[in-house]
Amino acid sequence: MITNLPTAELLSDTLAQADFLPRLPQQRRLYEAAKAAILSQQLGAGCKLPSTRNLAKDLGIARNTIIAAFEQLVAEGFVVTSTGSGTYVAATLPTVSRPKGKLKELPASTPKIPLAGPAPLSKRGAQLTEFAAGERYEIQPFAPGDCDFSTFPYKIWQRLQNRVWRDSWSELLDYGKAGGYLPLRRAIAEYLRVSRSVKVSIDQVMITAGTQQSLDLCAQLLADVGDTAWVENPCYWGARRVFESCDLHLHPIAVDAEGIAPTASELMSKPRLIYVTPSHQYPTGVVMSLARRRMLLELAENEGAWILEDDYDSEFRYTGRPLAALQGLDAHGRVVYMGTFSKVLYPGIKVGYLVVPPLLVEPFKSALYDLHRPGQLMIQAALADFIAAGHFTTHIRKIRQAYGAKRELLRKTLVAQVGNNIKISGEESGLHLVIELPDQVDDVALASLAAESGIAVKPLSNYYLQQPVRRGLLVGYAYVNMDKISYYGKLLAHVIQAGTRL
Amino acid sequence: MITNLPTAELLSDTLAQADFLPRLPQQRRLYEAAKAAILSQQLGAGCKLPSTRNLAKDLGIARNTIIAAFEQLVAEGFVVTSTGSGTYVAATLPTVSRPKGKLKELPASTPKIPLAGPAPLSKRGAQLTEFAAGERYEIQPFAPGDCDFSTFPYKIWQRLQNRVWRDSWSELLDYGKAGGYLPLRRAIAEYLRVSRSVKVSIDQVMITAGTQQSLDLCAQLLADVGDTAWVENPCYWGARRVFESCDLHLHPIAVDAEGIAPTASELMSKPRLIYVTPSHQYPTGVVMSLARRRMLLELAENEGAWILEDDYDSEFRYTGRPLAALQGLDAHGRVVYMGTFSKVLYPGIKVGYLVVPPLLVEPFKSALYDLHRPGQLMIQAALADFIAAGHFTTHIRKIRQAYGAKRELLRKTLVAQVGNNIKISGEESGLHLVIELPDQVDDVALASLAAESGIAVKPLSNYYLQQPVRRGLLVGYAYVNMDKISYYGKLLAHVIQAGTRL
Repeated sequence: MITNLPTAELLSDTLAQADFLPRLPQQRRLYEAAKAAILSQQLGAGCKLPSTRNLAKDLGIARNTIIAAFEQLVAEGFVVTSTGSGTYVAATLPTVSRPKGKLKELPASTPKIPLAGPAPLSKRGAQLTEFAAGERYEIQPFAPGDCDFSTFPYKIWQRLQNRVWRDSWSELLDYGKAGGYLPLRRAIAEYLRVSRSVKVSIDQVMITAGTQQSLDLCAQLLADVGDTAWVENPCYWGARRVFESCDLHLHPIAVDAEGIAPTASELMSKPRLIYVTPSHQYPTGVVMSLARRRMLLELAENEGAWILEDDYDSEFRYTGRPLAALQGLDAHGRVVYMGTFSKVLYPGIKVGYLVVPPLLVEPFKSALYDLHRPGQLMIQAALADFIAAGHFTTHIRKIRQAYGAKRELLRKTLVAQVGNNIKISGEESGLHLVIELPDQVDDVALASLAAESGIAVKPLSNYYLQQPVRRGLLVGYAYVNMDKISYYGKLLAHVIQAGTRL
Repeated sequence: MITNLPTAELLSDTLAQADFLPRLPQQRRLYEAAKAAILSQQLGAGCKLPSTRNLAKDLGIARNTIIAAFEQLVAEGFVVTSTGSGTYVAATLPTVSRPKGKLKELPASTPKIPLAGPAPLSKRGAQLTEFAAGERYEIQPFAPGDCDFSTFPYKIWQRLQNRVWRDSWSELLDYGKAGGYLPLRRAIAEYLRVSRSVKVSIDQVMITAGTQQSLDLCAQLLADVGDTAWVENPCYWGARRVFESCDLHLHPIAVDAEGIAPTASELMSKPRLIYVTPSHQYPTGVVMSLARRRMLLELAENEGAWILEDDYDSEFRYTGRPLAALQGLDAHGRVVYMGTFSKVLYPGIKVGYLVVPPLLVEPFKSALYDLHRPGQLMIQAALADFIAAGHFTTHIRKIRQAYGAKRELLRKTLVAQVGNNIKISGEESGLHLVIELPDQVDDVALASLAAESGIAVKPLSNYYLQQPVRRGLLVGYAYVNMDKISYYGKLLAHVIQAGTRL
């Protein structure tokens, strides 16, 4: 037991040293000083604290300040008060019995990184981290994936957004409990019926926070750990990461000129999920043939599998009308259709949608709320108005034209430079094109070479789950300014020529 | 092979019948009519279509319209063209060989719900759907969980939001690739250091789309399928659903007056994750004692476990200062701390944050992007300005006072009506209080009784993972208007008296 005076001195000293907290009020500094003294056991368990009156005198601090600091220490269990008897440092050792010899003192130092012991990450976490797409997908010339969000009509958007905030019921600040904001679901249903030939009632539409969340919901609700998911090979990496994190068994299926092409023996396997991008295979750009579409639908019906149709950039078809969705051919409710506004409006809007078969409406609605607690109804309302007022259609038309022109210019530039030695595929739609390369070309090395010139094209190899079948470069052109396309196109052509001696 | 004339007549007829698509342009209707005829096999494989010139004459439609419709049919593989020879219905049977006898005709009807076959939902999906919190958590008097978002200073917010949209670089429309908008991460780090005694550098802060996403990231990155997660019993249901969907093994640990209270044998078990709510145990309101905090930290260090500290409503402590976070005591980097703006600003804002130990910064940053592709940087920027300008602190102070007054009035009303027969716990903080009930009272039945009077209190029993230990009612008071508290409080007291004969 220590007497009052040393405690007061100790607190005074500690307080003086507590200059690492200069911006904090006195009460807080006193609290921190006392806490540090208790945790370092300079003030041991059972030690009596001086009275607030004495301490106020000793430290030259207002008594109320000291009382407030003491109350905080009491509330957090560092000290206990005993009526009429005073304030004592609490017994801070665990009150629950534990095996002897395992207790260690808590060092008062800053966190250290353990060098040994159990792996910090889970196996799925380690697998996920190894990939680290975020590091590599920067906005640089020709990096595939992004749209040109600098053209987003933000003044119109702001006006609509302000109207929603001004006129809205405060209910739009709450979570979205019923699958999303109804007028937006209605607008999406109409858009998909007219533009994508999707068979859909409003009830089947759910608003999600984007395709990643849509995929996660499907993987969680429709497949269990170890279940097989067919993915296209090469495949969209974002879907792959979600399925892996949900511990599905991924079965890569080759892609040919008609889209996903399972072999006879693969057709005998029983996938639980079939993830496809029929309108514009990601990343090759192939359109799935009608025969393959019917084959998948039959397979899904016979085996009770679910087809996940990701229609991520179907708005961008530069010749003719957009292709109809696979979902529109589905007579047995085996297709979950998904789309996003990230490629049409701007990436960070984080609004996507699912169209689920009638059977799945209630489970999806319920799980969407329980797992993700959706919100952003204000944005959903502004978006519904944006669509209803025709701005959405206008914007699509405008950017489709711009992207088509960029694509054509890029194609011409590349052909003019490299000639007929390269083949450009996936030409008619999307936000990127693929430069096909001969098998002996190391496309990964070529992409690194391009990166040295400030061009962020991606090697096709990286999209394969197993040994790459074809080599190539993905070139995103959507957000490169029209007047820069020629410059970067020529630069890229030089890199290809230098790297491949074509 | 059918001659040209019947085909034209057929198309003409089908087109006339296609009045289910009255709002569509003629080209689209023709396309739909032809597609329907092909799918229903009225136009069989190999059937030659009439020339566009003849068809234009027969149908009385501009030839360009017909050409466009044909091009669409070609692009989607319904018909094929042979140069100089004409256009034919494609062979739509699968080109890949399949076991005989499994092919079925596609009926042209609307989707039907299958009555038999494989279970549509996965096991985890079925488990999740059974719970269906969304159905039950409506905004009604006394439903716990929501804050009073009608007090959100939306005019200030709109002004800040407009400034961000007006002045921002378009980069804020992109995905957030580096763990969130830097000024917001800085503002959160400062807030947590000062108000919550969290030890944090800016780099350790990651912005998420709310606590559900924070929990999901932790479960994915730090635990594998079948790993044990300790959860408090009773427990926050949202966390439980996320862990279950990630296929963790949940081990419920009893809660006593000092918080989570593992038994000696439980302490010998090796949890991978320990999910706790130390500042205000959800739902009981207990504050975790210092002894328990130190015990958990030691256990985590010795066993290589991760503590997930959910500090969901620590801003609302009505007596004294907010309690310091468990994370602040962590000397070995074993605590992942999480918080949310949903309880302080408005639920649908969907901005939460994680503070991860230095060791986990890179893996979390990378996985956050790869799994969730975060966005909403515009909202993050507005929020950073909101905090920097002091509006956040002002708003917290204002609502803390209001909620404290509501809580006190509710407590007084209940005590005045029911007297000392009920005990109210979790009194000093949060957005709800718990009315404790004798063991023999069926709190689920009592909550149903209350619901009949339009009061949406929740039974404590529902928050237990196993056999309930204590009975009670959770009463959320935050968003009930002050002048309605007495009315609903009396109503609730009557229900309790009627239901329990107290």
